[in-house]
Amino acid sequence: MLKNVSRRLLQIPESPIRKLVPYATNAIKKGIKVYYFNIGDPDIETPEIMLEVLTNWKQKTITYSRSHGEPTLLDSLKAYYNKLGHTSININNLVVTLGGSEAISMAFLATTEVGDEILTFEPFYTNYNSYAAVNGVKIVPVKTSAKDGFHFPPQQVIEKKISSKTKAILFCNPNNPTGTVYSQKEINTLVSIAKKHNLFIIADEVYREFVFDKRKHFSILNYLSEIPKQIILVDSLSKRYSLCGARVGVLCSLNKQIIDGAMRIAQGRLSAGLIDQLMASKLSKVPESYFKKVHLEYQNRRNTLYRGLLSIPGVSVPNPEGAFYCIVDLPVKNSEDFCKFLLTDFNLKGETIMIAPAAGFYATPGLGRNQVRIAYVLKVEYIKKLIEILRQALPAYNNKLKSRG
Amino acid sequence: MLKNVSRRLLQIPESPIRKLVPYATNAIKKGIKVYYFNIGDPDIETPEIMLEVLTNWKQKTITYSRSHGEPTLLDSLKAYYNKLGHTSININNLVVTLGGSEAISMAFLATTEVGDEILTFEPFYTNYNSYAAVNGVKIVPVKTSAKDGFHFPPQQVIEKKISSKTKAILFCNPNNPTGTVYSQKEINTLVSIAKKHNLFIIADEVYREFVFDKRKHFSILNYLSEIPKQIILVDSLSKRYSLCGARVGVLCSLNKQIIDGAMRIAQGRLSAGLIDQLMASKLSKVPESYFKKVHLEYQNRRNTLYRGLLSIPGVSVPNPEGAFYCIVDLPVKNSEDFCKFLLTDFNLKGETIMIAPAAGFYATPGLGRNQVRIAYVLKVEYIKKLIEILRQALPAYNNKLKSRG
Repeated sequence: MLKNVSRRLLQIPESPIRKLVPYATNAIKKGIKVYYFNIGDPDIETPEIMLEVLTNWKQKTITYSRSHGEPTLLDSLKAYYNKLGHTSININNLVVTLGGSEAISMAFLATTEVGDEILTFEPFYTNYNSYAAVNGVKIVPVKTSAKDGFHFPPQQVIEKKISSKTKAILFCNPNNPTGTVYSQKEINTLVSIAKKHNLFIIADEVYREFVFDKRKHFSILNYLSEIPKQIILVDSLSKRYSLCGARVGVLCSLNKQIIDGAMRIAQGRLSAGLIDQLMASKLSKVPESYFKKVHLEYQNRRNTLYRGLLSIPGVSVPNPEGAFYCIVDLPVKNSEDFCKFLLTDFNLKGETIMIAPAAGFYATPGLGRNQVRIAYVLKVEYIKKLIEILRQALPAYNNKLKSRG
Repeated sequence: MLKNVSRRLLQIPESPIRKLVPYATNAIKKGIKVYYFNIGDPDIETPEIMLEVLTNWKQKTITYSRSHGEPTLLDSLKAYYNKLGHTSININNLVVTLGGSEAISMAFLATTEVGDEILTFEPFYTNYNSYAAVNGVKIVPVKTSAKDGFHFPPQQVIEKKISSKTKAILFCNPNNPTGTVYSQKEINTLVSIAKKHNLFIIADEVYREFVFDKRKHFSILNYLSEIPKQIILVDSLSKRYSLCGARVGVLCSLNKQIIDGAMRIAQGRLSAGLIDQLMASKLSKVPESYFKKVHLEYQNRRNTLYRGLLSIPGVSVPNPEGAFYCIVDLPVKNSEDFCKFLLTDFNLKGETIMIAPAAGFYATPGLGRNQVRIAYVLKVEYIKKLIEILRQALPAYNNKLKSRG
């Protein structure tokens, strides 16, 4: 008998963000318009100066880039971090990755052996589960709650989850999927835990620029001089410049062993995409006005969504502080079933929405089953449609369940 | 004390193809022109119809592609394999990967647990080592030799290397780094071993089109109906269309568990690059004349290189049958030291070459130490320079060693 495929392959979870895609495809086939709020794929235009890299393309051969990263991009990234005030970062502290995704995977592999643990806060970015499975790592979740705006619990609650196998604390700030922006005090707490227990901190800051209501983002990079060897930054240009489909991310660390190891992984897969990197290298030339406009747009979307959601009976959500996601409590028992219903059984004037069931954003079984994640990446007009669709779909769904008995 | 970085990170090898890059960079700083024969990064122009995807770019937002792959690319790939005669392949047997590299990593993870073995033939593509380290897999090498043109040894020699931990046989055809093209009979042997021992076959056919002297490439895909669940094809568009810097590869299998698992990995990393995939999707529109010209060019390069190398005293090489690499025996004891010498101590009229020491293409310590891999990816004029540089550098190097005592 043929050897089986590996157990580790079978353990890789399906993405809760993407698993309902076949239902959406069917809805479209039936002539229904589907608005995609399930995935953080913004409709904002990519900066013109980046798109011009394509239309002005001259190079006749699409050659490999350097494993480390395209030199012009590395220079632009160094300038970007330096401008943020993190002046100790130079190109030898950076490796360009195939999206933030590869940086996460590298950080997991760099800090753990198979069977080791990484502590994080649930709900968390679901793809951490995929990379944990690929790398044989156990994600140990510390629960956060809507009633606290998904902020961190006290230090002693976090420390209870640390075992001899814990190698790193992972957090995403601003948070995907909750929209929480952590305060300086909260990050201080994480840093003191990391110091006390000698842990790495893996900080996913891909939504750094997306903070609302005059909040300020407080980066883990502010601790580079205090714990230089412990910090691993995971970054990506996908959201900042609407470059999701250009797979360009960054791993940043002052720990030479980590960067050297990431470089060896990078050599093994040869290089990131040349064209994507050359586009991204224009980041230092993107005008401030671009970000101001984008920021205002997201704040408007957030406001429309938040107010709208609160106007629906039985729905609750903390006011999202950043990123472009929120975790919403719905008056349903099984949000995955409801998300399917939206695609298979419901439409409002021929239109419906795709949103992500939240259970896949938790590691603890049973949590998040009445929640969904909404990515408010589409324009205000469509967010208004989302609100009306939810307002009508929720009673329709619950009536249908009742009529089934 | 801070927890250490992982042992598995430290075990990832440096790429022998890229480790000498810093010496090349220094040579260039000294004003020396370096010809890169170390890496399979062709100078052939990318098909015009693919480059036009860039210059005609209209889409204002660089959005994610589908995890499975961009639909137009999947259709083009299906048509490509069908046209080759493999009519059972449809898009559900394909996953678009971030270069052939990701497909290799997926194949390793899909077929093995940590500690399992994959059997392959040495010398082999060095990055198999990187992916073996990343996935915790042991590469078990079966030795092939220059005197046999690096063809497979008899079945019983191969079978001796199979243990209870062996999960797959991996081979690259046409071979990187040897240029060997395996006969139908040789592949029959592999298939009968796989059947007898219930192993997966991972076939890396990224050089499928590069076969010389009227040889025909015999694909593993010819066995799809015989052992449908055992075959995993690793493919890439990098070499075929000079798209190395566009990270587009393919994993192909009729084994549903493998494709479903690869899809879940693909969902975890969201998508391959949108722009690269849209370029690659034009593959079905690349005229036959493009390949004819490319094929002729490589055959000329191969001829120039082969004749030239044989004209240098002490140098030997089997006539490469395909791909664009060869493993060359040099009259030196330590080819890595010689490759460094070429970059640090030697130049011919201000010019030198970068070539790859071959030891890193072997798993058995000590093998390949007098060999180098040459990638004949540059035009005939430069190959002639390579020959003259080698002709003069070899005695210069050996004299220098003697004078050192």
